[in-house]
Amino acid sequence: MILRHASTLNGAVSIVLASASPRRREILTKTLGLTNVVVVKSAFAEDLDKSKYDGAAAYAEATAWKKAMDVCQNWSSYSDLPMPDVVISADTVVESASGTVMEKPGDASEARAMLRALSGSTSRVHTGVAIVTPKVRVDRVGELCGKVFSETTRVEFAELEDEEIDAYIATGEPFDKAGGYGIQGPAAAFIRGIVGDYFNVVGFPVHAFTRELEPMVGDILERA
Amino acid sequence: MILRHASTLNGAVSIVLASASPRRREILTKTLGLTNVVVVKSAFAEDLDKSKYDGAAAYAEATAWKKAMDVCQNWSSYSDLPMPDVVISADTVVESASGTVMEKPGDASEARAMLRALSGSTSRVHTGVAIVTPKVRVDRVGELCGKVFSETTRVEFAELEDEEIDAYIATGEPFDKAGGYGIQGPAAAFIRGIVGDYFNVVGFPVHAFTRELEPMVGDILERA
Repeated sequence: MILRHASTLNGAVSIVLASASPRRREILTKTLGLTNVVVVKSAFAEDLDKSKYDGAAAYAEATAWKKAMDVCQNWSSYSDLPMPDVVISADTVVESASGTVMEKPGDASEARAMLRALSGSTSRVHTGVAIVTPKVRVDRVGELCGKVFSETTRVEFAELEDEEIDAYIATGEPFDKAGGYGIQGPAAAFIRGIVGDYFNVVGFPVHAFTRELEPMVGDILERA
Repeated sequence: MILRHASTLNGAVSIVLASASPRRREILTKTLGLTNVVVVKSAFAEDLDKSKYDGAAAYAEATAWKKAMDVCQNWSSYSDLPMPDVVISADTVVESASGTVMEKPGDASEARAMLRALSGSTSRVHTGVAIVTPKVRVDRVGELCGKVFSETTRVEFAELEDEEIDAYIATGEPFDKAGGYGIQGPAAAFIRGIVGDYFNVVGFPVHAFTRELEPMVGDILERA
């Protein structure tokens, strides 16, 4: 786990979050106590061809990896700071019961279609996470070291009336969120329950992240 | 659902939350958008005899009901404001895999014992919620109208090392929380996943609350 390492990491290690999501930043800083996080929004277009990936989770992993790699490989174009010790990125997608992969809705009618598809059904939220340590390279091939993984949470929506969907869209909540909703806001009332990690639905799988980071902490501290 | 009623309720209805939990207040105001909530801490001692109730959920319901009743029946001793339209209260308990009911730990050693009992196991969180409408009385018996219900969420903890438990206790987090942890803080990293409503684990079952409140809204607005 990470809790007992938090103060050491905060003092010794520079962490970049390659995601503009304020929710991910809050999870890292407030929930996990990693206060020394710099946010950099990756310029990666997030336009991978979904049909080339074996499922929505693999697609989210690939996008997360590309975002982290972009920031590491083009670091000097993002910041005047020295290369960070750790670069973290994530990508969240929602997969409807019928298998449609939903990202952020472009407008109200797209948000309405997404929320209608989620109403009364169990969908899945996949978050891919990449953890890259850009100061560590695999000697033989010169590639950056890191790992990528994903976490899936099932989400059961109650039946939503159109009037409720419209009131929700009017709040503006859907537009920066995969699937057109944020479980941490008013849409909490729409959701009967989940199976899995709640924070994965918000956009960052806290438990899986700490489990995956734990064995890397020694190496990270050594190179920092 | 409640979202489409929120602005009407905010304008027309006085709501009292008979619970000092800042988390419950935040869920009502920020998550559900019920901005017109006054917090009153019930003086009810929360000392019911657990052995008299058929399970931990029934015990939480009874405590929630007593807290709401106390505030309604002794309103003038709590506030100079007029009697509110709605009084809401809640009580959360954690039931370990072996059936021990855990409330707030009294000290570090009690917190340690609770977290060790939760480590590597699946426990259950029960929140009882009372919704009382003190201006409405059942004509025949003169009793206050209201309802009480509970929601249960299963929580799967990872194996926790003693070092991690100690680091967590040192944050001070356990002491105002049933079971000695708060899923919304650093303990998020301890939890593999849940089955059910996340907000129920935080202390207030958002979906069940809105589902139960919905059929009461007409009456509440009529009497307000």
